Amino acid sequence: MTAQVQALYDFMGEPNTTEMSITSGEILTLLNTEIGEGWWEGKNAKGETGLFPAAYVKKLTPEELTQTKAAPPAPRYDQAADDWGNQQYSAGDNNYQRGNSQEEGWDDDWDDDTYSEIGPVSQQKAPPPYNQPLTPLPGMPINDHHQNFDDAASSFGSTVGTVRKNKFAPSSKISGESYLLATLNVEVPDSDKVYIVQEEDRYVWSPVNQPYTVTVASPKKESKFKGIKSFIAYQLTPSFNNIQVSRRYKHFDWLHERLQEKFTLIPIPPLPDKQISGRYDEQLIERRRVQLQEFVDWMCKHPVLSKCEVWQHFLTCTDEKRWKAGKRQAERDNLLGLNYCVSLVVPEKALLQSQVDHITEQAHTFMNSMDTSVKSVVAMCQLQTKRFQGPYKTDSQKVGEAIYGLGNALSLDEGSIVSTSKLTSAVKMTGGAYIDIGRMYDEQPKWDWEPLGDKFHLYKGIVGSFPDALANHRGAVQKKRECERLTAENKMEVAQLNEVFRRTDVISYALLAEVNHFKAERTVDLKATMQKFLRQQIQFYKKIVDKLEVTLQQYDE
Amino acid sequence: MTAQVQALYDFMGEPNTTEMSITSGEILTLLNTEIGEGWWEGKNAKGETGLFPAAYVKKLTPEELTQTKAAPPAPRYDQAADDWGNQQYSAGDNNYQRGNSQEEGWDDDWDDDTYSEIGPVSQQKAPPPYNQPLTPLPGMPINDHHQNFDDAASSFGSTVGTVRKNKFAPSSKISGESYLLATLNVEVPDSDKVYIVQEEDRYVWSPVNQPYTVTVASPKKESKFKGIKSFIAYQLTPSFNNIQVSRRYKHFDWLHERLQEKFTLIPIPPLPDKQISGRYDEQLIERRRVQLQEFVDWMCKHPVLSKCEVWQHFLTCTDEKRWKAGKRQAERDNLLGLNYCVSLVVPEKALLQSQVDHITEQAHTFMNSMDTSVKSVVAMCQLQTKRFQGPYKTDSQKVGEAIYGLGNALSLDEGSIVSTSKLTSAVKMTGGAYIDIGRMYDEQPKWDWEPLGDKFHLYKGIVGSFPDALANHRGAVQKKRECERLTAENKMEVAQLNEVFRRTDVISYALLAEVNHFKAERTVDLKATMQKFLRQQIQFYKKIVDKLEVTLQQYDE
Repeated sequence: MTAQVQALYDFMGEPNTTEMSITSGEILTLLNTEIGEGWWEGKNAKGETGLFPAAYVKKLTPEELTQTKAAPPAPRYDQAADDWGNQQYSAGDNNYQRGNSQEEGWDDDWDDDTYSEIGPVSQQKAPPPYNQPLTPLPGMPINDHHQNFDDAASSFGSTVGTVRKNKFAPSSKISGESYLLATLNVEVPDSDKVYIVQEEDRYVWSPVNQPYTVTVASPKKESKFKGIKSFIAYQLTPSFNNIQVSRRYKHFDWLHERLQEKFTLIPIPPLPDKQISGRYDEQLIERRRVQLQEFVDWMCKHPVLSKCEVWQHFLTCTDEKRWKAGKRQAERDNLLGLNYCVSLVVPEKALLQSQVDHITEQAHTFMNSMDTSVKSVVAMCQLQTKRFQGPYKTDSQKVGEAIYGLGNALSLDEGSIVSTSKLTSAVKMTGGAYIDIGRMYDEQPKWDWEPLGDKFHLYKGIVGSFPDALANHRGAVQKKRECERLTAENKMEVAQLNEVFRRTDVISYALLAEVNHFKAERTVDLKATMQKFLRQQIQFYKKIVDKLEVTLQQYDE
Repeated sequence: MTAQVQALYDFMGEPNTTEMSITSGEILTLLNTEIGEGWWEGKNAKGETGLFPAAYVKKLTPEELTQTKAAPPAPRYDQAADDWGNQQYSAGDNNYQRGNSQEEGWDDDWDDDTYSEIGPVSQQKAPPPYNQPLTPLPGMPINDHHQNFDDAASSFGSTVGTVRKNKFAPSSKISGESYLLATLNVEVPDSDKVYIVQEEDRYVWSPVNQPYTVTVASPKKESKFKGIKSFIAYQLTPSFNNIQVSRRYKHFDWLHERLQEKFTLIPIPPLPDKQISGRYDEQLIERRRVQLQEFVDWMCKHPVLSKCEVWQHFLTCTDEKRWKAGKRQAERDNLLGLNYCVSLVVPEKALLQSQVDHITEQAHTFMNSMDTSVKSVVAMCQLQTKRFQGPYKTDSQKVGEAIYGLGNALSLDEGSIVSTSKLTSAVKMTGGAYIDIGRMYDEQPKWDWEPLGDKFHLYKGIVGSFPDALANHRGAVQKKRECERLTAENKMEVAQLNEVFRRTDVISYALLAEVNHFKAERTVDLKATMQKFLRQQIQFYKKIVDKLEVTLQQYDE
């Protein structure tokens, strides 16, 4: 049954985005509640579809539904809206394409000449095949999950006798099957090796030797084909060489795909959302810059990601030819997915499976809970931004106008008593103060709610990727158990099983190192984030206090 | 054509008041926009009528009207609402009558034995006849107004020859005709005389000799007829004798009528509105107490009102028999309306009519402008109260819950790194702080918006009465001009005309004194009011700052 919702408030969708305007009282058919960040997708009576804030509507019970008739939506200012027809929500469809020239280039077409090897990529990526395993619900027995990987594990059987063919098995290049079964034997140069070390009672990635930072500078509008095409390019400057490179969103996007293919046990920080909200183009572009900076910061601080070749290439290449060569090399990389583990050097000590299970189960429960709360913080930040820039601003301005109007009325009676003049101007100034406070509400979100939302956008992406990493690890453990059975049935050599054990441990070490990295990072990062947020909030309310105190002084003789 | 409005937000009307619940999206027929204080009256699709905040609805244009179909209102919790049937808005109808026993007695029936001379009085008073003259618009020629009074002025002609009978003429007891034409010649004892004196360049009431205050204490619930009837009685204690008297609303109401009859050139401060809003009975009663205190304060500070007999009787009488005697005497008072001016002693100097005209015209313009702005301040205070106790509270609590949820999620991952524990509890505390701030928003209006609203309720009443005072004065001036014409036509003696001149001057002196009294009072009073308001606002935002600063400290090692 399709759910119906009723708009509680008017919402004016950003023109030329996937946002949709809704009118208080309007009935909409709910299409998708999994958009995230507090957005839902729905269809109105005209058949138009789009996104709106979930907090602006209420779900109708079947009872209410029979009692409520949909009010047809109010006439739209935006005549172009009629052209949208049956537009389905899919970013890159007409998202930003209809925007003004500043928007162009954010997700315009790929250059065929440059990226012909890959071909055009859908902007709204389907999850890559190695991400397919479903996130198991906490408490479900481990064995029941990851059909996909189990099948892969079974297909491995073909090499040792048990035959169960699975046409859906992911390519061994990505699944890591060849790594686990030791059929992959690549000599990794020392410079590419990545170490996991013990630190107190836990295993961690060997820390970054030469820490660096990269700044993402305010984007520039660039053009090519003699100005026919224009696009936004972000200027990245790494601290280790201070050489600025210019990167468009499509470059980030390409990088992000490479990273996701390569590191299935390491959540890759997210790029900016397509559905990012902002009132002006400049604001949109700035929000994207901030979210790109968050992406870049996370990359720089990560002991593995910060060193990886494709990222270094992305950060440093300034030459078109070298860029293409590096690109081709990255796309030819064989050490993807679990196969990447061949690069890892871990402690000698074998891991206790029960201990690993305990840690991964705890991580699973934790990530599930984090996922919910991180999403709700993101939604809350978006809502607060809208509130500050909407009703809070206008309410304060209404207060200001009422008081200012009083001052105006009082000034009609001036002249006969000199002392009233002082009062009148104080009253007017009080009105002005509240109008100013309204303006402060309007401007405040960029100092607190938006940065907080951007930070939690990052966490939402990372936390959201953890179940895949956990699932990949579980698949390997599952395969190890399969091998134990095969050995018990004398279908596998003990020596080969021991190598499977060793390699499963490498995978477990990698997961533990990543779990610990995330824990250490967020401990430092969340603290700084919350402190910064609270300081901005304090600053804001102090500014209100200061403004009102100055106003109060006007009443003194 | 009847105007239609559409509800923009849900509004939950206070049960057992004239407020009406409206549901976002609902269409209502507008019945009355002159309720004041930001309230409108309307009728819903069920035929129920009631008041709702004007700011919660938008007027529909004819276009919108054809496009919008009214959604039937959501089912009501309040089953009793069905009984309201076609209830029209009229206070005292079933306003408060359906409330719990605490409400009884606020406007219950008059005691027939006590007030038989007057008989039952409609709770929603029609304006008394001497208030009938319409407020002229600024800029309209003075001569064109106050048909009512002009007719009275003409009917005066009958005593000197020109005949134009007017059956609607107010009784001469109130119109002051007999005073102006010197047919009223009462010897007023010195003790009752009221002086107007010159102070610098203006005329003022001779100031209060023995200033006093009266406190209105928290009301008590009293009962009579062996507890069958219960009512609210307010405890008044004058500072000059410290003897507490108990007065019910009906006593205030009776007093108010006497004062309005007697002082047509002096605006009488208003009693509390029937439509006062509040969430709980206790809150309603407290708001009324505060508004009664405002009434009493204005009375005490007024040089004429503070001394008048009926007020003194009201303040001091503790004996039932004396009460009745004093009451009868007050109701037999002949010096009502302009006739009261016989008690006034004014400077010898004749006034320049052009100067008087200038001052009264300025006062008229000023009062018109004040009326608008004072009403908008009252409406703004009510709206802010609703905002603080509604969305501001819930928004802050949502922020708190999102952050607290994050803390909860983090605590699922406790135990392995000790330092997260500190962070987790700091995050949870941050959530708690915002939930507390929500509570602070809920409680705040009683410290700032409500007192400000109560003060401006007082000003709304006084400013709203000034046009009547100005009209009464204009009527007298008009009559004076009529007499000049009659004298020019030899239909009136010069000596009599001079007496009319003198008495018109007395009326003008009284008006000028009152205009100046109001100016002086509001200068002092508004200053104190705004200072108090701003201090409370500062206090509030400081409390938020303090709370957030304590929270911020939790993040420090």
